Amino acid sequence: MPEFLDLLPPSVALSQYLDQLSPSPKMEQIETLSAQRRVICGDIHAPHPLPSFARSTVDGYAVNAAETHGASDSLPVYLRLVGEVSMGSVPKFELSSTHCGLIHTGGMLPKGADAIVMLENTQVAQPGEIEILRSVAVGENVIKIGEDVEQGEIVIPSGTLLRPADIGGLLALGINSIPVTKQPSIAIISSGDEVVPPGADIQPGQVRDINSYSLAALVERGGGIPVGYGIVPDDEETLRSITIQALQECDMVVITAGSSASTRDLTSKVIDSLGPPGVVIHGVNVRPGKPTILAACTLEGSEIAKPVIGLPGNPVSALVIAILFVEPIIDVLHGLRTPRIRPKVQARVSLNLASQTGREDWVPVRLRLEGESFSADPIFGKSNLIFTLSRADGLLHIPSQATGLNAGDMAEVMLLS
Amino acid sequence: MPEFLDLLPPSVALSQYLDQLSPSPKMEQIETLSAQRRVICGDIHAPHPLPSFARSTVDGYAVNAAETHGASDSLPVYLRLVGEVSMGSVPKFELSSTHCGLIHTGGMLPKGADAIVMLENTQVAQPGEIEILRSVAVGENVIKIGEDVEQGEIVIPSGTLLRPADIGGLLALGINSIPVTKQPSIAIISSGDEVVPPGADIQPGQVRDINSYSLAALVERGGGIPVGYGIVPDDEETLRSITIQALQECDMVVITAGSSASTRDLTSKVIDSLGPPGVVIHGVNVRPGKPTILAACTLEGSEIAKPVIGLPGNPVSALVIAILFVEPIIDVLHGLRTPRIRPKVQARVSLNLASQTGREDWVPVRLRLEGESFSADPIFGKSNLIFTLSRADGLLHIPSQATGLNAGDMAEVMLLS
Repeated sequence: MPEFLDLLPPSVALSQYLDQLSPSPKMEQIETLSAQRRVICGDIHAPHPLPSFARSTVDGYAVNAAETHGASDSLPVYLRLVGEVSMGSVPKFELSSTHCGLIHTGGMLPKGADAIVMLENTQVAQPGEIEILRSVAVGENVIKIGEDVEQGEIVIPSGTLLRPADIGGLLALGINSIPVTKQPSIAIISSGDEVVPPGADIQPGQVRDINSYSLAALVERGGGIPVGYGIVPDDEETLRSITIQALQECDMVVITAGSSASTRDLTSKVIDSLGPPGVVIHGVNVRPGKPTILAACTLEGSEIAKPVIGLPGNPVSALVIAILFVEPIIDVLHGLRTPRIRPKVQARVSLNLASQTGREDWVPVRLRLEGESFSADPIFGKSNLIFTLSRADGLLHIPSQATGLNAGDMAEVMLLS
Repeated sequence: MPEFLDLLPPSVALSQYLDQLSPSPKMEQIETLSAQRRVICGDIHAPHPLPSFARSTVDGYAVNAAETHGASDSLPVYLRLVGEVSMGSVPKFELSSTHCGLIHTGGMLPKGADAIVMLENTQVAQPGEIEILRSVAVGENVIKIGEDVEQGEIVIPSGTLLRPADIGGLLALGINSIPVTKQPSIAIISSGDEVVPPGADIQPGQVRDINSYSLAALVERGGGIPVGYGIVPDDEETLRSITIQALQECDMVVITAGSSASTRDLTSKVIDSLGPPGVVIHGVNVRPGKPTILAACTLEGSEIAKPVIGLPGNPVSALVIAILFVEPIIDVLHGLRTPRIRPKVQARVSLNLASQTGREDWVPVRLRLEGESFSADPIFGKSNLIFTLSRADGLLHIPSQATGLNAGDMAEVMLLS
């Protein structure tokens, strides 16, 4: 195994690598209703102000605020009730001074009204006459026209990942169809002479393909479209031709290299032969996942350098590195304006954990809620054991400058779900 | 508006409410490949040990550990090379003492071998003769049969939400189809005379339906299947008959009540007429979202009390309350063993925030990364303004015992994405 000297920590490696990419996501128009987790392509402007009419935020009486000046329990102001606002329609009356109108939350203000007195600050003096017990200022208990958004204002900037509130906001403005970026397609190639498909009869010495499917699930969860290219034997020409095909057909290629040093070298050699810039970073200062390859290749006849990532062959390293690198790269290809915020919790480590200074570690842990805070129990096991990760709630971060953590120390845990 | 005295904080209200439910999710069999975000129904046991043969974790030489006793740089042990293990097949040779075999990471141990010496701790003395420069213990650099999971062991317990690593683990064991719970179907009813469908021509006084669609997106994201029942006018009999139909057809009903006190009272009255136990909790000590209704109804002829949740009509309160209550209830209906851990980050508040003691507040905030930590900028606006939530990255939590937060205080922010 070649020794990786002067390796970069993951965050620095990722940022240096991302500088090499200049993605230009394509656009498509889809229904707003089904746009959750998609990314807006081009700023969305408000076609009209929201709300489009002045509305009450309370149940009460619409008034001309000036008329309520000085009103109190001991010195009420008396106003004549001239109507009730029906929900969903224009009030059938106007207010002149000394008049008021009954209004419900969400109701449209009648002409002449500029504030609402809350029901609890009023009293019916006699039928048709209302005692006002508090004064109100102009605009009090009212949502003004355009208070949420003004006409023409950018309501959702380009590159926004859409969530339930965004879908609600777009529909509130009557925007029923929107431009979004096309989801990036991510080719997944497994390699290794010992790897067989999960449905196959397994022979001694063989293992079932885990990586193709756990990575497909990860890609799908991250907003990409996984495209499987099957299992490639440890053979240079086969790997090269499948990788070229994947590069032609997809926006990114992820290869899980075989586990031995020689097959990893083969993967790196093949990637480096597919066009500039080739391998940008080979090896990252992290455990698990040191022998990671971050590359970009511009095929002959193409103008775009597409990301090609070589993941370690063992399934735990492959998934951890995919979380650290493949997910953020998908975000960039997807056109996200800012990287997604990774869900993390703070937790108290339950055991001493050793770590080499200068190397960043990610340790699978189980989380237990103890009162208001989390306790993290490390799950030990060789990094090849997929169920150490399946049993984990998250990955505990040991920063590179630490020589380990002591039981009781607080640490950051990246959630796996 | 009725005053809600002695209201419970959200977490207590939720836990008291969940005690009323006894969900029994139904089972269906699906392909493991497409089981991401589904919930395992019944413990899954390992059909065979994993790995099913002893494998090397390094590139090196398979040996009988006893033979390497005392080996060092100055006093190497010499072993005869009798073969190379091909990846993916049973070694074609056996080791007797003083023999060794070349093996690659992931390769199957030949008979007679019980440890691997790493390549970097060896040297080729002459063709066919290997110098061993370090001693190894039995089992060193080897994954034993069953080291990941033993045959018959529970690999994924009932009630587990499936993630990429779980899918990988199941396929590693050849489990290509699994029993999962059926996703709960969640009926969504919007109410209000002023509410019109988003595609309709809007008239002054009317507002487009936001809640049906933002809640549908939230339900879908939470693992439920949203079923829309349209917009119901503020009319008791119509609301009752639609709610009964929804209760018959779905596992849970969510009603966004009209905004005024009278329509909220109508919702509560209708819910309380649909069978025991009816309204369990009316009003929660939280802002936004105080007038929340948590109910469960057992229709005549049915034996199951299904959840019926009355959300405030304004779209921000509706979504915040849906996050606090509807999402965890969906988790329970979906058969999750433990509630999902909510993604949160710690952030420094950038401004003073007032809050009433005894009331829990959730304030929409924007997050800014400042070095390694987050700063949270509150987004002010009346709680009816959907774009205050659309612009937010998360909801900042002001605990009920706090009288507010000072600029610079650390607080917990629940992520919205």
